[in-house]
Amino acid sequence: MNEERAKQLIKGVLTQKRFEHSLRVADVAKELALRYGASVDNAVLAALLHDYAKCQPRDQLKNQIIKYGLPQQLLQFHHELWHGPVAAKVMEIDFGISDKHVLDAIYYHTTARASMSLLEVVIFVADYIEPQRNVPGIEEVRELATSNIYIAARKAMQNTIIYLIQKDATIHPDSFLAYNDWTNKM
Amino acid sequence: MNEERAKQLIKGVLTQKRFEHSLRVADVAKELALRYGASVDNAVLAALLHDYAKCQPRDQLKNQIIKYGLPQQLLQFHHELWHGPVAAKVMEIDFGISDKHVLDAIYYHTTARASMSLLEVVIFVADYIEPQRNVPGIEEVRELATSNIYIAARKAMQNTIIYLIQKDATIHPDSFLAYNDWTNKM
Repeated sequence: MNEERAKQLIKGVLTQKRFEHSLRVADVAKELALRYGASVDNAVLAALLHDYAKCQPRDQLKNQIIKYGLPQQLLQFHHELWHGPVAAKVMEIDFGISDKHVLDAIYYHTTARASMSLLEVVIFVADYIEPQRNVPGIEEVRELATSNIYIAARKAMQNTIIYLIQKDATIHPDSFLAYNDWTNKM
Repeated sequence: MNEERAKQLIKGVLTQKRFEHSLRVADVAKELALRYGASVDNAVLAALLHDYAKCQPRDQLKNQIIKYGLPQQLLQFHHELWHGPVAAKVMEIDFGISDKHVLDAIYYHTTARASMSLLEVVIFVADYIEPQRNVPGIEEVRELATSNIYIAARKAMQNTIIYLIQKDATIHPDSFLAYNDWTNKM
């Protein structure tokens, strides 16, 4: 799978808005990969494909979680957390992507997890800070991403956990394990 | 172990301030037990003993975590989380307390955990709202504790998690799992 094929692929399944978001994430992921020494090709590919399943109906996502043998625990959490794991499986099984770093970066781009690879962190942060994203505290994360991507990732996760707790929403265990992991490493 | 023996026991090992805190927690735990239908005797006993190990030096707590075969993962978290599990083990092994609910209420009074018994929740909330405790948001938790102890417990945990995240501190997984569990049950 190359960049052009990935763009064609997502253009066919995403809304225009989501497609343009994916292009912006790819631009930021490329910058971050260059800055921190991750594979630029992998960063662009994972970024383009990270939301591949985002516009699928909830039932279809649910069916694929079952079909692909993804952890059924996912179904206990908000459906917003389903599209990453599903996209990773579709890319692996239906489109033959075999690079584990790319697949993991797609899989964990929403929840994050402990012990993420640099590529996974690049995609997680790029998705959070792409130029059209606007959430409280984002400028601080953008600033941190110019100097330490792990501190930027932790700050993004801190913002997200506090936001979810203030909404009385559950939090996927991988997200707080990521937070603890980044905190322990600092 | 009865109430009087428990009072003597903690008077011998706690500072005056911590001893008085324990008496206040016992008073609140008694009220909550009466309100929600937990065992009053067990609530008072667990409340009196919950901080039994609180004034022990860090090294002593650490040695006991190892000696009693408590999860070594505890040592990766703040030492503030060590005294509950240690006190539970001391009460079980050295003082012959066999009631699992009392032991668990002591063990989990700081971190909480998923699927807590009513007694565990009573001690967790009583410790948080005792009259001399003063943390941001406590009045809301006191108010909630008059109508729904699980919502009160969740609010206490929400306050604590946000406080810890804002301090860049790690959070014990049991605390997040407790938060998710209470949220799923509401």
